[in-house]
Amino acid sequence: MRMEKKEKSILDYETVSLDLEHHALVIIDQTQLPGKIEMLSLTDIKDIWEAIRLLKVRGAPAIGVAAAAGIYLAAEKIHTEDTQVFYSEFQQAKKYLATSRPTAVNLFWALDRMENVVRTHLTESVAKIQSLLQKEAVRIHDEDIEVCRKIGEYALELVKPGDGLLTHCNAGQLATVKYGTATAPMYLGMERGYDFHIFTDETRPLLQGARLTASELHAAGMDVTLICDNMSASVMKKGLVQAVFVGCDRVAANGDTANKIGTSVVACVAKQYGVPLYVCAPTSTIDMTLETGEEIPIEERDPEEITEMWYQARMAPESVKVYNPCFDVTDHDLITAIITEKGIARPPYRQAFEKMLQVTP
Amino acid sequence: MRMEKKEKSILDYETVSLDLEHHALVIIDQTQLPGKIEMLSLTDIKDIWEAIRLLKVRGAPAIGVAAAAGIYLAAEKIHTEDTQVFYSEFQQAKKYLATSRPTAVNLFWALDRMENVVRTHLTESVAKIQSLLQKEAVRIHDEDIEVCRKIGEYALELVKPGDGLLTHCNAGQLATVKYGTATAPMYLGMERGYDFHIFTDETRPLLQGARLTASELHAAGMDVTLICDNMSASVMKKGLVQAVFVGCDRVAANGDTANKIGTSVVACVAKQYGVPLYVCAPTSTIDMTLETGEEIPIEERDPEEITEMWYQARMAPESVKVYNPCFDVTDHDLITAIITEKGIARPPYRQAFEKMLQVTP
Repeated sequence: MRMEKKEKSILDYETVSLDLEHHALVIIDQTQLPGKIEMLSLTDIKDIWEAIRLLKVRGAPAIGVAAAAGIYLAAEKIHTEDTQVFYSEFQQAKKYLATSRPTAVNLFWALDRMENVVRTHLTESVAKIQSLLQKEAVRIHDEDIEVCRKIGEYALELVKPGDGLLTHCNAGQLATVKYGTATAPMYLGMERGYDFHIFTDETRPLLQGARLTASELHAAGMDVTLICDNMSASVMKKGLVQAVFVGCDRVAANGDTANKIGTSVVACVAKQYGVPLYVCAPTSTIDMTLETGEEIPIEERDPEEITEMWYQARMAPESVKVYNPCFDVTDHDLITAIITEKGIARPPYRQAFEKMLQVTP
Repeated sequence: MRMEKKEKSILDYETVSLDLEHHALVIIDQTQLPGKIEMLSLTDIKDIWEAIRLLKVRGAPAIGVAAAAGIYLAAEKIHTEDTQVFYSEFQQAKKYLATSRPTAVNLFWALDRMENVVRTHLTESVAKIQSLLQKEAVRIHDEDIEVCRKIGEYALELVKPGDGLLTHCNAGQLATVKYGTATAPMYLGMERGYDFHIFTDETRPLLQGARLTASELHAAGMDVTLICDNMSASVMKKGLVQAVFVGCDRVAANGDTANKIGTSVVACVAKQYGVPLYVCAPTSTIDMTLETGEEIPIEERDPEEITEMWYQARMAPESVKVYNPCFDVTDHDLITAIITEKGIARPPYRQAFEKMLQVTP
């Protein structure tokens, strides 16, 4: 009998996982995509910091999962039986990992969750705390899959078979453990024969839309069309888009949403052409400590990402000024709804979030 | 005495000119910028067709000037004394050149102006007609400078010293003979110490904003900052932009404007943030035969411009669908005013244009 040899696709690998046997964080190196699928096995906290910094692992939920795994792996290496010494070294490691990237709140959320395990078990042995940290890191990983699936179910209520959907950057499986956030309705819809027509912005400067989203949706067999960021008005004006789904890096209490640079441009265009824009947000991305998006720190990255990266020759004059913010903040009044794993929040967002999170103001 | 040797800048060359001595159209090869300033001397109509097609010369006004020179050079080579034979061959050459690009109306406008010279002098000798064609080609070239300067003067009335100005693609000197259209107020403002802060979108996929606009404004010593197309909302939300100036390839009677892909995206963003958007349009770009922008033919270009061009490795998955329109149409209600060499047109545009062009409806 002749065996069919099927080449592995990007979807056959987990974006981010914890290899307990080898005490390692395992990630797909996303800077190598779409050319090469290269798995990295990282054991050292400095390598994990660098992987987050250099976008080898990226996407707010995946960063959270990676940070939880990273701090667990660091904690495992603290050789002491003195719980206070352990806690002090844990906090140093946490502080260090927290400097890897500034905008996505999931990084801090995951690290806080891990610290909470230590703080509430200071009377236990170091070995016991380390064991609890391992469980929490695994739980954060596993929960992410469930959270994305639920977001997908809620999002699917907002569209119908045959719809055209547009997404920006990669809030896909490659930004999470599975399903993605903005892509969750696309994956679930595909399983159910929804036959969506998907447009993905290429997302300059680092082209996550072209390199990652187009790759994973294409690998999944979806009907996906790649466009440049400046083509969204063309496709919306033609009536080809019935809904926009985007992810997010941090949502303020009023619904203002930081996400990949260009999201608010898509939002302005969607408003002009009457297309609803939905933000897909695990509740871990909602930061109720910030009143508005103005308080969200926005990472600025190197000019060379725009002027040189991936080009065979320099594409801009020498010494020209460049502005390269990594994210922008979309005003809450441009967002039709925010979809979480706990349901769909509609304006006014503060009240919706408080109810959802059961936070007392 | 020691001589200062100053390196020549892009602004020291004419974008497009007619070399009468060598019977050639001389252009800067814009596909080589910003890396190399290479002048091309073209004598054959096929080379001129290709130069327009491949964007070696681009920008609606420059295409018009090049087409006029091209058809003159072709006419010069028609060896007959029979005016009717001459006219017939002239029309064939005109028809051929007209297929080089579909969207910019200046191409057809310039060719029609040249044909008009022939048609109104059919009783003259071929040599006489050829001589008149030369004069007309030179006139179209010279007029372009004056048209751009006047647009600059009108545009300058709409801004004040210190303003932040944003432009998209290249409607600069490199799109015209001198001054540019959208950049004309910037050049004139600079001569008068207006101290503008200019933002230029890089303009995917072919990066005319990064390669051309940033290069020429930087060479002129202006304060120019390069951004990706998806960053316009960020700079406008910060209050850094007081006016948007863009060029155009064809303006319909109702003011709908075809211009480089992404212009209507900038227009949606400008509307959201209350920034006026001005289209700089030589009257040769206004096409009163078209009621609305829906009738403007939009060129679609090769997918590889998005997936591969200039990259060291393919940036999108193999065989993914790509949509690559070269232009989009900005709805007239997103345009604050249209600035021509004959004054500033404000809505309703049809009436304004009719008055300006003295066309009877």
